[in-house]
Amino acid sequence: MTDKDMDWQELDDMLHQAFDKASEIYQQRGFQRRIGFGKKPALISVDLANAWTRPGNPFTCDQNKMDNEIIPGMQRLLAACRANGHPVIHVTTAYEVTDRNAEFTDMGLWHCKIPIDVVDIKDKELWAIDSRIAPVEGEYTLLKKRASSFHGTELAGILRAANVDTILVTGVTATACVRETVCDGIADGFRTIAVKECIGDRIPGAVAWNLFDLDAKFADVHTVDECVSYLETVKQKNS
Amino acid sequence: MTDKDMDWQELDDMLHQAFDKASEIYQQRGFQRRIGFGKKPALISVDLANAWTRPGNPFTCDQNKMDNEIIPGMQRLLAACRANGHPVIHVTTAYEVTDRNAEFTDMGLWHCKIPIDVVDIKDKELWAIDSRIAPVEGEYTLLKKRASSFHGTELAGILRAANVDTILVTGVTATACVRETVCDGIADGFRTIAVKECIGDRIPGAVAWNLFDLDAKFADVHTVDECVSYLETVKQKNS
Amino acid sequence: MTDKDMDWQELDDMLHQAFDKASEIYQQRGFQRRIGFGKKPALISVDLANAWTRPGNPFTCDQNKMDNEIIPGMQRLLAACRANGHPVIHVTTAYEVTDRNAEFTDMGLWHCKIPIDVVDIKDKELWAIDSRIAPVEGEYTLLKKRASSFHGTELAGILRAANVDTILVTGVTATACVRETVCDGIADGFRTIAVKECIGDRIPGAVAWNLFDLDAKFADVHTVDECVSYLETVKQKNS
Amino acid sequence: MTDKDMDWQELDDMLHQAFDKASEIYQQRGFQRRIGFGKKPALISVDLANAWTRPGNPFTCDQNKMDNEIIPGMQRLLAACRANGHPVIHVTTAYEVTDRNAEFTDMGLWHCKIPIDVVDIKDKELWAIDSRIAPVEGEYTLLKKRASSFHGTELAGILRAANVDTILVTGVTATACVRETVCDGIADGFRTIAVKECIGDRIPGAVAWNLFDLDAKFADVHTVDECVSYLETVKQKNS
Repeated sequence: MTDKDMDWQELDDMLHQAFDKASEIYQQRGFQRRIGFGKKPALISVDLANAWTRPGNPFTCDQNKMDNEIIPGMQRLLAACRANGHPVIHVTTAYEVTDRNAEFTDMGLWHCKIPIDVVDIKDKELWAIDSRIAPVEGEYTLLKKRASSFHGTELAGILRAANVDTILVTGVTATACVRETVCDGIADGFRTIAVKECIGDRIPGAVAWNLFDLDAKFADVHTVDECVSYLETVKQKNS
Repeated sequence: MTDKDMDWQELDDMLHQAFDKASEIYQQRGFQRRIGFGKKPALISVDLANAWTRPGNPFTCDQNKMDNEIIPGMQRLLAACRANGHPVIHVTTAYEVTDRNAEFTDMGLWHCKIPIDVVDIKDKELWAIDSRIAPVEGEYTLLKKRASSFHGTELAGILRAANVDTILVTGVTATACVRETVCDGIADGFRTIAVKECIGDRIPGAVAWNLFDLDAKFADVHTVDECVSYLETVKQKNS
Repeated sequence: MTDKDMDWQELDDMLHQAFDKASEIYQQRGFQRRIGFGKKPALISVDLANAWTRPGNPFTCDQNKMDNEIIPGMQRLLAACRANGHPVIHVTTAYEVTDRNAEFTDMGLWHCKIPIDVVDIKDKELWAIDSRIAPVEGEYTLLKKRASSFHGTELAGILRAANVDTILVTGVTATACVRETVCDGIADGFRTIAVKECIGDRIPGAVAWNLFDLDAKFADVHTVDECVSYLETVKQKNS
Repeated sequence: MTDKDMDWQELDDMLHQAFDKASEIYQQRGFQRRIGFGKKPALISVDLANAWTRPGNPFTCDQNKMDNEIIPGMQRLLAACRANGHPVIHVTTAYEVTDRNAEFTDMGLWHCKIPIDVVDIKDKELWAIDSRIAPVEGEYTLLKKRASSFHGTELAGILRAANVDTILVTGVTATACVRETVCDGIADGFRTIAVKECIGDRIPGAVAWNLFDLDAKFADVHTVDECVSYLETVKQKNS
């Protein structure tokens, strides 16, 4: 674990050198613009369910980051949303037909790349939202089948119906479900904010390079502090 | 009930005169073409759940047609699918947040037009598929939020992943969920077949005019006999 | 032409009797609710291009209604939008590959039902918006391939990005592109208004039964007068 | 240019060490599965238009890779598709309303992150497909507005209508439009193949980390040689 943490740090340094060089190019070209916070936010928390947040599953993410950054950060974001009446959508993933040889399955073709056949909808504990950040009455839990929380789901329509114009995205993994949710979010017309400390993964470097790509082209990356401050003040600004 | 049935018949005659006139126009113009059955079918059964198939709910459909045509027709279609290994997708509709004053609800704006707030996901009996045509092991039950079985759902992707090229659509209502499923089906690239006896509604005339519109522009309307015959023979044709 | 007009009136009377009966059922059940006008409208004008608005094409619609109601009504709506800064989206339809035997075509399967192979993108006159209601600088022209102005297009994302919450839908035909645009509009989270005098078709009865279905379940049907009044006053209400 | 090339190589070595470590984790967990080639392919070539392939534009990509790998590789893929009757879709991007202060624009919110306001649809040269790989008669050119070639376009429906089950994806950039096209492709039910030498970007490392993420979770990465061999033999296999 110790030397693994070292590797991550070393790689992280190297990546940030590359990001600095890339940022020069991006800045010259007019990329890395700021999209800004809007008037009506919602929090979209992606796949912070037990199969991803707890040990012992193929989907288990980096536990150090999960326990010390993501969950505590999410608790602060949830408190700010709940105190100020902002919608919270908890997203999770599970499948009805997990037999990889079935003629027809809601896994589609994705089981041909990753082990989604382990998340059987009959095993509710697996895909239940982590109890440390459990939904409260009135918060919506969205069950998705693909990486994106928008693709093949009702999410965009519901958010528009509620006049939401800004989404704060958290969860796992940076490589897949978070990144796809962010990219679809801006394509669907929402201001997209990726919450820095609350996005995780299970392989070294992936959070860094995916947040770099997202910040350059698809979302503003902000800290939990900045997001909490926004969630606490946006209402007054509008009234 | 008797005079209501009379009205339906009288209206039906009048409508068919209009359809004859319209068909002349359509035929001269090159509409009402045949899309044809394809090589790999699936049955999409829309909202044949208790709130729609049984008495006593705002969504209850014409019970005479339900008990004497739709359910018996569906039983024959299901038998043909199951005997020949064709996928069956049972579609139903229910909502997590049914408070019409909620800040955020999976009903979106649709509760502003129709009483979907009565289909609470906590009352499983309401949205369970009618026991006379209940899903068997391996058949997929799709929970949707909108009229179309495709819009905001995983359906198109799953069907494609299974190489399905033809959908046989049944259920209720002709005015809303069946029509929208058919229209999205052809838009998503599937050969669309509307099964004549297995599509219902709750108001006079609506089945007739909607099936006429669909047959002219979006789907071939076929009888249960024709569909069963296709389901029983399509496999041999392909091998 | 004269007896054709008679048929339309006779059929119309019969249909309205049926609608009265249906409305009793709908009212008892809690359908036909009002969605209401929102805070930020856009006008979505569907397929009012020459192939549909002018004589001599398979897609030509009822010319009496076109010239005497739809176009004049549209001119009033456009004036109200332009005077008050409301977005106008002109939607049209055309295809790159119109060979019905091609291995691959942007017509998808729709040419298997209706003669869309006549609307070749190389013949700009066919799919150009009717000059009587031509787009002005800054108005967006959307080229679609399917019935719905939303399905497989960028429309929902662009509307949300512009904070639009209400769409006024006009054009042709009631049976296909207008109805599908309205149904997808509410599903995508927009308040949907169908403008009564500005929606046409090419067969008797189709405008009546489709507007009835839409008003019951998917949109509020309003007159041009009501819509113009809304377009002229909505800005003040918000400021 | 010379020291820039050095940086790329150094970074590449470091990244591959990280990928090796990540691959250990992925292999233990059951990720990095192979999706395989299907029975009916199409080539999806993303944004290989002049603004991206030629010097002097904010979107210009790494010219060394473009001229020496991507274009020559594309020429071989195109030859194999054309000789064997496989569909080719050329994707490009341009906008009607490029005024960033407009009330309504087809740029949606994306101009808030990247300089898409430079790709004006009136300047056809900018978004025309590079003449070295220009479309031939019968090949479809798709105009998109977002990163993904699928999101808000007719692509999935057209591919399904043509019975395509496999997409070979090429073009730029790895970070945005290629990655999004691949991720939506598998979500929409297509077997996704990313063509290694034919995917570019404009910043160091981005091709490497994005192809690594894609191969782990969303697509099989294959060489031009492997893809050409598949395109030349798939037809015989099916007959």
